Amino acid sequence: MGRGPVVRATVLRAPGDVVLDDVADPTIRTSTDAVVRVVAACVCGSDLWPYRGVGFDGSEPRRIGHELVGVVEDVGDDVRTVRPGDFVVAPFAISDGTCVHCRNGITTSCVNGVFWGSPDADGLPVDGGQGEYVRLPWADGTLVATPEQPDAALVPHLLTLADVLPTGHHAAVMAGVRAGSTVAVVGDGAVGLCAVLAAARLGAERVIAMSRHEPRQQLARAFGATDVVAERGKAGAKAVRELLGGVGADCVLECVGTKESMEQALATTRPGGRVGFVGVPAGGPELPVGQMFKHNLTVGGGVAPVRAYLDELLPEVLDGRLQPGRVFDLELVLADVAEAYAAMDERRAVKALLRP
Amino acid sequence: MGRGPVVRATVLRAPGDVVLDDVADPTIRTSTDAVVRVVAACVCGSDLWPYRGVGFDGSEPRRIGHELVGVVEDVGDDVRTVRPGDFVVAPFAISDGTCVHCRNGITTSCVNGVFWGSPDADGLPVDGGQGEYVRLPWADGTLVATPEQPDAALVPHLLTLADVLPTGHHAAVMAGVRAGSTVAVVGDGAVGLCAVLAAARLGAERVIAMSRHEPRQQLARAFGATDVVAERGKAGAKAVRELLGGVGADCVLECVGTKESMEQALATTRPGGRVGFVGVPAGGPELPVGQMFKHNLTVGGGVAPVRAYLDELLPEVLDGRLQPGRVFDLELVLADVAEAYAAMDERRAVKALLRP
Repeated sequence: MGRGPVVRATVLRAPGDVVLDDVADPTIRTSTDAVVRVVAACVCGSDLWPYRGVGFDGSEPRRIGHELVGVVEDVGDDVRTVRPGDFVVAPFAISDGTCVHCRNGITTSCVNGVFWGSPDADGLPVDGGQGEYVRLPWADGTLVATPEQPDAALVPHLLTLADVLPTGHHAAVMAGVRAGSTVAVVGDGAVGLCAVLAAARLGAERVIAMSRHEPRQQLARAFGATDVVAERGKAGAKAVRELLGGVGADCVLECVGTKESMEQALATTRPGGRVGFVGVPAGGPELPVGQMFKHNLTVGGGVAPVRAYLDELLPEVLDGRLQPGRVFDLELVLADVAEAYAAMDERRAVKALLRP
Repeated sequence: MGRGPVVRATVLRAPGDVVLDDVADPTIRTSTDAVVRVVAACVCGSDLWPYRGVGFDGSEPRRIGHELVGVVEDVGDDVRTVRPGDFVVAPFAISDGTCVHCRNGITTSCVNGVFWGSPDADGLPVDGGQGEYVRLPWADGTLVATPEQPDAALVPHLLTLADVLPTGHHAAVMAGVRAGSTVAVVGDGAVGLCAVLAAARLGAERVIAMSRHEPRQQLARAFGATDVVAERGKAGAKAVRELLGGVGADCVLECVGTKESMEQALATTRPGGRVGFVGVPAGGPELPVGQMFKHNLTVGGGVAPVRAYLDELLPEVLDGRLQPGRVFDLELVLADVAEAYAAMDERRAVKALLRP
């Protein structure tokens, strides 16, 4: 695939209208930049919000996508940790790796941080991640190279490291999952399924997947769920308590972001337990502090600092202990991006992988 | 002091009208009961809510008070861990000590739990704690005896174990304070001051007391505060950041319970940090989940499970390492209970100790 003056990338032109379009060929603009040739990208549940017109009206078409793996094509003069030819994982948030928040492990609060598709600190546009090539402004702080070129079969698993696996892991970490914990997972999307995998990996004794969808229930069990609860609301919380000897779970991983899912999470947590939440809050609700106070509930979570978890998670993906790429149930070429969005929007697919 | 058919106890007759009145002499009613002769009790900030008419209109006068130390007078047949003559600390929440929540350390969620002044599981009235004698229904699960009779000088320190010291400690635990943490404490009442003491005890490197009151600032410093910030709101959060190299605190202990204090706590926490809250939420606000998500904030807290912390804290009070009784700046006889409430209500006193 040669590079001309233009390359192709996904553009959201209007709600429901996503296309592969010609864009300017990315080049190094600052000394900390890298340009990466995309090997695989994917569609995130959060990409569906603007696709559905939430917070996006189409007056300014936008580049989209924030999960990718690829091969470094070019780097700026100050880049030290990756070089052309390296296969890299690119987290969904770009971070400098040196500021106080990065050092604290909250790379998503990086003082120079930027998200894919937004302008960086120099005002330069950062590319969306669903394209043939991308420029990103903080290569050293963001990219993680694999020791060697991965087999094709490993690529989907590596791609989950850009977002959904570490995001599920973040939910588990924020909920305090440890050896022997009882865990319930609210949400059976790619993040919820990865949260099941992460909780099992951290040694949870019971992992209860809350899911009504047979194929997702099966994948949850393959990822380590010990139990599945199909009920929702009060019946769901009651079913969890019945599985756990009459009390709620020590740790509940909220992986959806709606009012109902947070209420489900709070109702499913035992007194003194913790909710880890990674579902992007879709307009609320605010958390009920009185309920939390009465039952000593802890709620913590947020935008997963993916980069901070890659040193821990990457080796287990490389050696096959973790196979999170099983969340991809649809694989398309980038030219079929519209079908990828439609399939996820209509819940025909859990998660769609795109190859340029 | 002999016991007749009646003893004296504090009764809240109407908002602003608290008196010492004759009540029935408490006796053993169930086999797990104890009757305790009160040596010292005190007034809690949360007692001021009904005193001010919040949730209380005087149509049903109520017994009040929930912090006391005393000497066991009598026990039911099934009581094993305390016996007549023992000097005991009585936590503000009564718990059976055996249910799943007690075993999880959340004694305030005990399935047989009851608060002072409420009816117990058998429908029998439990006494308020500000009186000469009290009956409590779960002696083994609730009371902790000292190894020997304490000196009079130790009594105020021991009395703080009924509520304010372990409540401040709970804030620190829920905020994840550990060796090297940076901590800010919102609230300079008795609980806030004890939270300072607890944070210092847990090894915090910096403990910033947010207080505008000179005597309380001094006591905070005596309890281990390394810094004092008098500003509030945005200026207060900015002052904390300036003390901490430009970022918020790792751990913020919210010890008030108002909208403003929770906002202060959230604004003062660094990305990825934790708020431990023990201020009884006074009507809200609900927590801003979007702000928490963006900055990866964790908020946890609630009704402090005092009993669960006594094994850890009591020895350090007994040997004088901790001197939390310094929060008492007013000592009165029980007959002067009206003045104790008035002094705290008017903020003339931090905390009033009452001796029958």
